[in-house]
Amino acid sequence: MCIRDRNIVERKIMWGDLDSLGIVFYPRYYEWIDASGHLFFESISMNLVNLWRERRLVFGLAETSCRYLRTGRYHCEIRIITDISALEKKTVTLRHTIRESVSDALMVEGLEKRICMDVSDPENFRAIPIPDDIFGVLNKAKGNMV
Amino acid sequence: MCIRDRNIVERKIMWGDLDSLGIVFYPRYYEWIDASGHLFFESISMNLVNLWRERRLVFGLAETSCRYLRTGRYHCEIRIITDISALEKKTVTLRHTIRESVSDALMVEGLEKRICMDVSDPENFRAIPIPDDIFGVLNKAKGNMV
Amino acid sequence: MCIRDRNIVERKIMWGDLDSLGIVFYPRYYEWIDASGHLFFESISMNLVNLWRERRLVFGLAETSCRYLRTGRYHCEIRIITDISALEKKTVTLRHTIRESVSDALMVEGLEKRICMDVSDPENFRAIPIPDDIFGVLNKAKGNMV
Amino acid sequence: MCIRDRNIVERKIMWGDLDSLGIVFYPRYYEWIDASGHLFFESISMNLVNLWRERRLVFGLAETSCRYLRTGRYHCEIRIITDISALEKKTVTLRHTIRESVSDALMVEGLEKRICMDVSDPENFRAIPIPDDIFGVLNKAKGNMV
Repeated sequence: MCIRDRNIVERKIMWGDLDSLGIVFYPRYYEWIDASGHLFFESISMNLVNLWRERRLVFGLAETSCRYLRTGRYHCEIRIITDISALEKKTVTLRHTIRESVSDALMVEGLEKRICMDVSDPENFRAIPIPDDIFGVLNKAKGNMV
Repeated sequence: MCIRDRNIVERKIMWGDLDSLGIVFYPRYYEWIDASGHLFFESISMNLVNLWRERRLVFGLAETSCRYLRTGRYHCEIRIITDISALEKKTVTLRHTIRESVSDALMVEGLEKRICMDVSDPENFRAIPIPDDIFGVLNKAKGNMV
Repeated sequence: MCIRDRNIVERKIMWGDLDSLGIVFYPRYYEWIDASGHLFFESISMNLVNLWRERRLVFGLAETSCRYLRTGRYHCEIRIITDISALEKKTVTLRHTIRESVSDALMVEGLEKRICMDVSDPENFRAIPIPDDIFGVLNKAKGNMV
Repeated sequence: MCIRDRNIVERKIMWGDLDSLGIVFYPRYYEWIDASGHLFFESISMNLVNLWRERRLVFGLAETSCRYLRTGRYHCEIRIITDISALEKKTVTLRHTIRESVSDALMVEGLEKRICMDVSDPENFRAIPIPDDIFGVLNKAKGNMV
């Protein structure tokens, strides 16, 4: 049997997140998704800042996307559920599902395709295969047999 | 002959746009893209706020995405070029191409799929076909024969 | 005896809040302070959006300020404590104290002086005395005898 | 005779800068002010990022404040005028005056008190007197006799 890891973040939509229509200004969703990605990595014992400082590795963004299904409004409580939807030699794709907490209604589906990069030279980042030990942790989190 | 309209916005990457790696924190690209979309509409004589106030129509987001090809750094000058990449009965898709001004190198390719909505009832937005007069303006901007 | 109301918000500093030095980019503190102000009002049974919709009253900003005493860093847990530091005929001043959760060390002291405004005419906001019923609620929250 | 240096930044208020009342969400002003501060330093030949990289010096924030006199609205053109209002042994205070471009009406007055810090140890920033060569440049920019 294998279980897929996921991390859940709860937050409240605030005044400053809204536009003139009284709904969430969409770049805010990406801010929450990025934060939820960091917390997902931390939940599987990978602190991204330590990874950067100690091994000069970062998971930089190759692509991001969101589909918007339902508007978010003032002081609405939401849940952001994050898991791994794809894992390849150099890349890992996080899936972020945002739901209204009370109704469980789907609001936003987001994806972040992150690419493993060596940043030893701060002026010239270089894509590399995900190191074996990290690949193992990600593969386990994805719920695959190791 | 038909010409595709496009709008160009120039800006400088600022300190507050950067993350701890010294590169642009990616939700900022979406902020600039959204702003560039509004300016594109204005450039074809469609002020989105007037459209909302006078006709209770908005072009809300259905989907957004970005591909990141090159990092943006402190005080780098960039150009955001916006045009229409697709036009359907209810939706219009804007394409935003971000280039480094000096080298003309491609940094980011972004898409915003916007859906025409009737927001007469502020609590219940409703997707509708793009009205004929507006469809005509968008179709002309896309460079199609009317 | 009289007790001063206060509201406490807990949050974690995220990657997207940091600048290239790895410390919080200061406009983020103002975003959290604004959100904490809304939650403070809600904690004393004043929902600011309902006040606006039902009575056409808002507490707009006249002045804001922050003093920065200690830097905030990646995934640090913080507490934002909000109370009323001054109440006058037309204005209420919120004080926001930000502390590191673990050490209780003071990080930021912020103030928001908010002025009561009639926004019946959306194009022309007008400062007015705080209505008696609202003044009573604020005065009680401040810990004054009514 | 002595002339005070100042730098002027022009920008347009965008959809994403507005709150549900259709006016600027105030933390955005601080983002623009911070950016204008960096451009002011650059205009007097002090690139803050080079200063940090080459000499391990930063001008960190000790205090910031804004007074709000007039609301900013959709696609309004503004000017941000930055100069030095005070210079002390360890600190420099920038004054940012935001005006509506067309009417020249005063919208916001902002202050940033920045303190000179040695950041050789990234975990422990230390306030120091402004080095003489930099003090000279700032003093000249302030319009004082050297």
